[in-house]
Amino acid sequence: MPFDDTPVLPRGFRCASRHIGLKPAAKKDLALFVSDVDAAAAAVFTRNQFPGAPVVLGRETMRGGVLRAIVVNSKVSNVATGEEGLARARRMAAAAAAELGTDAARVLVCSTGVIGVPLPIEKIEQGLRGMSGELQSDPVIGVHGMMTTDTHPKALSLRVGDATITWVAKGSGMIEPNMATMLCYIFTDAAFDAPTLDRLLRRAVHVSFNMLSVDSDTSTSDTCALLANGLAGAVPEAEFQAALTAGSIRMTEMLARDGEGATHLLRTIVRGAASEDDARRVAKTLVNSPLIKTMVFGADPNVGRILMAVGKCFDCAIRPESTDAFINGHAVVRGGTRADFDDAAVRAALSHDTVDLEVSLGVGGATATAYGCDLTQGYVDENAAYYSS
Amino acid sequence: MPFDDTPVLPRGFRCASRHIGLKPAAKKDLALFVSDVDAAAAAVFTRNQFPGAPVVLGRETMRGGVLRAIVVNSKVSNVATGEEGLARARRMAAAAAAELGTDAARVLVCSTGVIGVPLPIEKIEQGLRGMSGELQSDPVIGVHGMMTTDTHPKALSLRVGDATITWVAKGSGMIEPNMATMLCYIFTDAAFDAPTLDRLLRRAVHVSFNMLSVDSDTSTSDTCALLANGLAGAVPEAEFQAALTAGSIRMTEMLARDGEGATHLLRTIVRGAASEDDARRVAKTLVNSPLIKTMVFGADPNVGRILMAVGKCFDCAIRPESTDAFINGHAVVRGGTRADFDDAAVRAALSHDTVDLEVSLGVGGATATAYGCDLTQGYVDENAAYYSS
Repeated sequence: MPFDDTPVLPRGFRCASRHIGLKPAAKKDLALFVSDVDAAAAAVFTRNQFPGAPVVLGRETMRGGVLRAIVVNSKVSNVATGEEGLARARRMAAAAAAELGTDAARVLVCSTGVIGVPLPIEKIEQGLRGMSGELQSDPVIGVHGMMTTDTHPKALSLRVGDATITWVAKGSGMIEPNMATMLCYIFTDAAFDAPTLDRLLRRAVHVSFNMLSVDSDTSTSDTCALLANGLAGAVPEAEFQAALTAGSIRMTEMLARDGEGATHLLRTIVRGAASEDDARRVAKTLVNSPLIKTMVFGADPNVGRILMAVGKCFDCAIRPESTDAFINGHAVVRGGTRADFDDAAVRAALSHDTVDLEVSLGVGGATATAYGCDLTQGYVDENAAYYSS
Repeated sequence: MPFDDTPVLPRGFRCASRHIGLKPAAKKDLALFVSDVDAAAAAVFTRNQFPGAPVVLGRETMRGGVLRAIVVNSKVSNVATGEEGLARARRMAAAAAAELGTDAARVLVCSTGVIGVPLPIEKIEQGLRGMSGELQSDPVIGVHGMMTTDTHPKALSLRVGDATITWVAKGSGMIEPNMATMLCYIFTDAAFDAPTLDRLLRRAVHVSFNMLSVDSDTSTSDTCALLANGLAGAVPEAEFQAALTAGSIRMTEMLARDGEGATHLLRTIVRGAASEDDARRVAKTLVNSPLIKTMVFGADPNVGRILMAVGKCFDCAIRPESTDAFINGHAVVRGGTRADFDDAAVRAALSHDTVDLEVSLGVGGATATAYGCDLTQGYVDENAAYYSS
């Protein structure tokens, strides 16, 4: 799909961000995304059993199926903060609603950052004042207010007929280094009702963000929301779904490539599995294996590690004699044993920015792709040096 | 349990090791462990779906329930080597049997090292000749022939009445950095039949080696065997089981502490779980979490990471309000929120060689402990720099 060179928000959406004193220096730490009119909306949240207060409130908010705004702060995640945390999340929604002249029930609240620290709600309430006068159509402006360990702001947009879909995101996925929660907001001016959006979003997330893993750890705050304000009118559903899925996969790749310490995007593609569940499980196991991840970092075609990682999917249908594997197109395993390959050529292939590890199980017709990155000293440095308080 | 200061093999067991040219320099790469008389035996093997040829043969051998010897080489694992690999494993058993004057069906064969490389069987056949004349009672001599990335040889022994139990092991557990397969042999002169040994071994392994994880990767060659030659006569079964379990846990801790790049032993203790299965799953999730592991390396009491890791056990019974957590005895979480703790004291506790992370779920009476280590730059260095050929 042809992505816009410079991402823009769809018509009727605008955003702003500010430094309100949560982060040191002048780094932006608060963002506001607004639709000029009511937008139908759907969202999916983390499955972690210690969800943050914004996730608890967000589930309640989304029952209405209508949003006017998303307000998000970085630095403090408002997780493990009890009843008081939930009360502060509600105050944050109310403050944004007051600034925008709408109802708190139409404002989705997100927080990302340190766990177990009280949300500085007075700073946020004060910081929101006057922000409605700064709204602009460049999505990157909003992204700056929600970044944590990201090395660059992440936004992209795509046209579908007369409509636009725009993704903004922060974090490094289903992971939580330095609380690097994934937050992804998708805005469109296409017209869909909330139940349809929910269905479209779940389909897209199933093959994109839910197949993303930087380090197998799952944040307590992950949130992905889709808002449709309808200003561009109706768009064919199949066409919209295809674009929504393609853009979500592209954003998943951007998040994986920017995983903490990462130097490569790793895509693990499984074909010929007995079921979709098996395919997803083997793909996830490959993308999460520390030995596969260090192999990609070290640019070494280690056949043993690939077989090991496939073989540790104890409950999947695996037939060693029908298992083949490829690294960026080079066959490295044939029928469960080492293929005769040109070592130097495969090493060179492993040094590409994107490494595709493809495994063909030869037992059925199901496929899946998972998205991750290599494991480097940078990951350990970043997370061992991080202090929680 | 009081372990012997200097481990010895039980009566009737002896061992030897040699350098036969598989490893560079004069490093030992072949070991032989022998019982002077037939020993009843039981073994458990890796669940990996790409088992090495020695594992395939070993399962066949153990059906006999009697062993006279174990022969093991390091450097080449004889995994992913097809029919020819199995034939070479059989030749290795036959060569050891010929040297010792016994039957190949009474020799357990193990190989550890690189995957996908043909086993240099001629070197092994030649290397075994005359080895029966070098057998000694110091178990450490044998261990030297089976080490790969281990930083020190691992052996321990324990008395049970008039009998002795001796463990020898190599590797870093359920892990496979540099193919660091776990091989553990347990020798005793107590008298038990093979079905009883099998039961005793499975109970001990369930709470020890099966709760060990250095990096969540599972080797294609893991083997744990228990041999009883009966020379010390009968020993009360309950007393023997207690000693067998205690020693297996101690050996598990030695393997975890020597995990690749490790600077700490990490024990994750879960109490108050709804079921043993839940307790084991939460303990394993904690011990495998990269963010918990880097937290231990960084000596930072990061409450958020602990809650995150417990909370990502989606299918376990977790109640945030009844969840407490302790680091070496210091309460860091009370009722699902950050406890009021002395930061400096907990940082100091985290710098101990052994770090106990205890989580009390408060929903039932089941407990479990998992064994692992911290994640360091050393792990990445070792595995990214490792070349497979």
